[in-house]
Amino acid sequence: MASKKPKLRVISLGGLQEIGKNITIFECGNDIIAVDCGVAFPEDDMLGIDLVIPDFSYLVKNKHKVRGVFLTHGHEDHIGSLPYFLKEMNVPVYGTRLTLGLLESKFKEHGLTPTTHVVEYGTQLEAGKFKVEYIRVTHSIADSAALAIQTPAGMVVHSGDFKVDYTPIHGDPIDLTRFAEIGRKGVKLFLCESTNVGSPGFTMSERSIGPIFEKIFMDTPQNRIMVATFSSNIHRIQQIVNCAVKHHRKVCFIGRSMLNAVKTSVELGYLDIPKNLQIETYDIKNYSDEQLVIITTGTQGEPMAALSRIAAKEHKQVEVKHGDKIIISASPIPGNEKTISKVINELMKRGANVIYEGLMDVHVSGHAKQEEIKLLHALVKPKFLVPIHGEYRHLQMHKDLAVSMGMKPDNVFIMDIGDVLEVGDQDAKVNGSVPSGQVFVDGLGVGDVGNIVLRDRRILSQDGLIIIVVTTEKATGGVLSGPDIISRGFVYVRESEDLMEDARKVVQKAIDGCEMRNISEWQYTKGVIKDALRDYLWQKTKRNPMILPIIMEV
Amino acid sequence: MASKKPKLRVISLGGLQEIGKNITIFECGNDIIAVDCGVAFPEDDMLGIDLVIPDFSYLVKNKHKVRGVFLTHGHEDHIGSLPYFLKEMNVPVYGTRLTLGLLESKFKEHGLTPTTHVVEYGTQLEAGKFKVEYIRVTHSIADSAALAIQTPAGMVVHSGDFKVDYTPIHGDPIDLTRFAEIGRKGVKLFLCESTNVGSPGFTMSERSIGPIFEKIFMDTPQNRIMVATFSSNIHRIQQIVNCAVKHHRKVCFIGRSMLNAVKTSVELGYLDIPKNLQIETYDIKNYSDEQLVIITTGTQGEPMAALSRIAAKEHKQVEVKHGDKIIISASPIPGNEKTISKVINELMKRGANVIYEGLMDVHVSGHAKQEEIKLLHALVKPKFLVPIHGEYRHLQMHKDLAVSMGMKPDNVFIMDIGDVLEVGDQDAKVNGSVPSGQVFVDGLGVGDVGNIVLRDRRILSQDGLIIIVVTTEKATGGVLSGPDIISRGFVYVRESEDLMEDARKVVQKAIDGCEMRNISEWQYTKGVIKDALRDYLWQKTKRNPMILPIIMEV
Repeated sequence: MASKKPKLRVISLGGLQEIGKNITIFECGNDIIAVDCGVAFPEDDMLGIDLVIPDFSYLVKNKHKVRGVFLTHGHEDHIGSLPYFLKEMNVPVYGTRLTLGLLESKFKEHGLTPTTHVVEYGTQLEAGKFKVEYIRVTHSIADSAALAIQTPAGMVVHSGDFKVDYTPIHGDPIDLTRFAEIGRKGVKLFLCESTNVGSPGFTMSERSIGPIFEKIFMDTPQNRIMVATFSSNIHRIQQIVNCAVKHHRKVCFIGRSMLNAVKTSVELGYLDIPKNLQIETYDIKNYSDEQLVIITTGTQGEPMAALSRIAAKEHKQVEVKHGDKIIISASPIPGNEKTISKVINELMKRGANVIYEGLMDVHVSGHAKQEEIKLLHALVKPKFLVPIHGEYRHLQMHKDLAVSMGMKPDNVFIMDIGDVLEVGDQDAKVNGSVPSGQVFVDGLGVGDVGNIVLRDRRILSQDGLIIIVVTTEKATGGVLSGPDIISRGFVYVRESEDLMEDARKVVQKAIDGCEMRNISEWQYTKGVIKDALRDYLWQKTKRNPMILPIIMEV
Repeated sequence: MASKKPKLRVISLGGLQEIGKNITIFECGNDIIAVDCGVAFPEDDMLGIDLVIPDFSYLVKNKHKVRGVFLTHGHEDHIGSLPYFLKEMNVPVYGTRLTLGLLESKFKEHGLTPTTHVVEYGTQLEAGKFKVEYIRVTHSIADSAALAIQTPAGMVVHSGDFKVDYTPIHGDPIDLTRFAEIGRKGVKLFLCESTNVGSPGFTMSERSIGPIFEKIFMDTPQNRIMVATFSSNIHRIQQIVNCAVKHHRKVCFIGRSMLNAVKTSVELGYLDIPKNLQIETYDIKNYSDEQLVIITTGTQGEPMAALSRIAAKEHKQVEVKHGDKIIISASPIPGNEKTISKVINELMKRGANVIYEGLMDVHVSGHAKQEEIKLLHALVKPKFLVPIHGEYRHLQMHKDLAVSMGMKPDNVFIMDIGDVLEVGDQDAKVNGSVPSGQVFVDGLGVGDVGNIVLRDRRILSQDGLIIIVVTTEKATGGVLSGPDIISRGFVYVRESEDLMEDARKVVQKAIDGCEMRNISEWQYTKGVIKDALRDYLWQKTKRNPMILPIIMEV
């Protein structure tokens, strides 16, 4: 009987706001598969946090059901959490060649030796009740895939990250035929990315960048050329390398992630660098400006990346020269606009000629715009849609776009992280939720920094801290030493000696008051000290530092 | 003899990066005048700072020379520092009616009663050797001005903030004729704003917004309309009010700065609100959705502004309803893109229909684009140019633009904050610099938070803090109590009891080692404790909290 069949459950376990970005799971009866396993980068108010990974607790609880992780492509927001995940459970990892190649150094770093399967497009992989097929898509990293997942509730298509590029730099174009075949047979559910759904039209082919770089190289016969781009954008790097060859320039890569990505890509045959073209950083000095191209990380103005360090004159081997042509071949990720501007200004102040998006078309997106998303919808023809990736407003726009193509509004599900979409033979509905959300990675700690720690960091960062130390005699309760006051991050001490001396008097008075009233509970006295000092400092400075009274008994 | 005439010195005393934005001074012999006196808003790494004001020390030192402050218009980045400045020296303040009107509440708040002069366009004001004339310009606030300053070294024109609006909502258009007359007589130096110099074309008239709002009101017959805009953009508010009148809606203003600006503008006749149109917040409940327009602050996603509080469900009187039409009638100021996106997403999640720039033309800039800047250059025809306002790259683009119009590259000066431009009869050159830069305002404190305090806040915000307290006997040097360890913002304590206990042992061992070696200098012991604990924590957690050893002697 059909009604007894277990339903398909689809859940995004999240990281930050974008649903489906970091990890999506498909559950049916006793089987679970995960699609992607990425990190998010901390927001401004997550002070001191290095990475944000999804809360895997639901999977840990159902460890025995998990049949594998299927990676769509090798970007950090799709693979970066995998080491943390694999420490919780040892399950097979599926991915294309480059994706798994990029993971190798991560596995080594974390001391992991998981079972990995290199997947070819078009073959069917069995994982419990699921059958997974990789479909070739084009994106800003090579070897990207959408997934066609055959489930007991019907066919599910997960777009991964994609654009429709008919003329990619390496390999075949997106496999529209396969999307059409699968669509023709009937697709129950489509999970489709929404990153650029707010942009009308069609994203230009990666190949359109080539002539722009060619023009820049032509126009720069004498000066050094430096290009900042994403290290994983191998096809962009290939085009810059091609220009270098043509214009008889040597290429030097700088930045750790750039060197890693280039090495892996060359080894696996995704990047073609002619012999003797690449030089090491220490060799730069042996070439004149017109013989050099430097390819670097740091397009987002990240303070530790090579480009920022060069701009700040903090890079050991590379210094900006007057007349250097520097191309920022990337878009700002939302939130990074200002840091990038700063880097651009610094480079220009040092005499560089900086070209960035807006001045010339030195970047194309890796994500589908409206017409490409419509194209995939037209081929896949799903019954139900879950828009994934992008902010809430993009999910809403994606819904509007689907509805404009004839989809029933009730068949589109704008989900929250943790929500469970239940898909049956005929119907689908959001039904309950599972534990999900963000786990913070700080240094070696995973999950040991939570909201209380962040709240304390926030308070400390705003108005600093005042410590009051008093030593008392256990027997009598009398004060033996102190109160001493120490502050950090509050006011510059030499400027504020009177303020601190007066603060000490306020504390002394509070302690005297407690002694006079024969109060011997130190917890209570601490409260009195805190209140008195907080009021005093607010009145004098309109600031609210963290106040920490410490009482030592001897 | 001409050579004995004192030269004109032009200096921007700064705030943040944008030169000429917050305060520019003109000095000639024994006379100084200041143009504008604004604040900058703190950058992300200025933790806890409320405002950034310019370093006035050069003016304080030359107090006896200062003849007055001439304000170009009433925006915070041009008037916000004035109260702090006037506390240093009591000099006359010149400005147009609205500019001075907006300052009144500030003066009251700071307990100041300066001498103010309401200036009419076209009259000449004497200030020592200088004669200052206000020229009408159009901008996103009414009553804006450029200044023509007659100096012993020749005529100087300071553009202020401007756009060329032929059809402003209130008052006359920009006075191009006067620029032409002054240009015809010969202008030695032009200080001209560069904010939008990167944008080709012409900024649309403020009036072009009216029909867009009219269309939105027409398309929204039943739902509530909410508009977020800058409180000082009185002409924008006037157009929304006009739509409200036409569509029989009451208007409710929310947000403190909005209420202030509206009150002042109505009193001075810059904003025309028909009787009985405006309602109070508590009255909202007495009107149905189609009878209401709410005009609010918060276009930049500022967490304390009304719109953000409404989006976060933290506003006491206004809650978002399903179907509300909310218009964000402003552009993101660089750096605010992400916070604004968050507010938009929150509003949409609550069912609002949000319209923002990019979806519809609900905002025009108040700053001149390339063609307008060229127009002013063509009229003013200056010998020398100092591009002001905007990032370094904008100043550079402004230089390129001027050169493309025939100016000699050597006659354009891209200055740094504090640089002195000396202008003589024939020549001009940058010659030396004066103390300048940023002074931080935090609570009531002006300048008492400097780099050391900020560095401490930064460390505290990244990895928190560990305090070690030990009580020792003065006579013997022996430990009487402790070491006790207290942490804040480091790790969540319940999760890390072992870590903290082990840390305590590390400290104990360090102290024992010092005792064994008969080290009695506590400063030295503190260092040993710090080093031992730092190494231990780094090894265990890869984190670097601030470590504060405190030794109490009894």
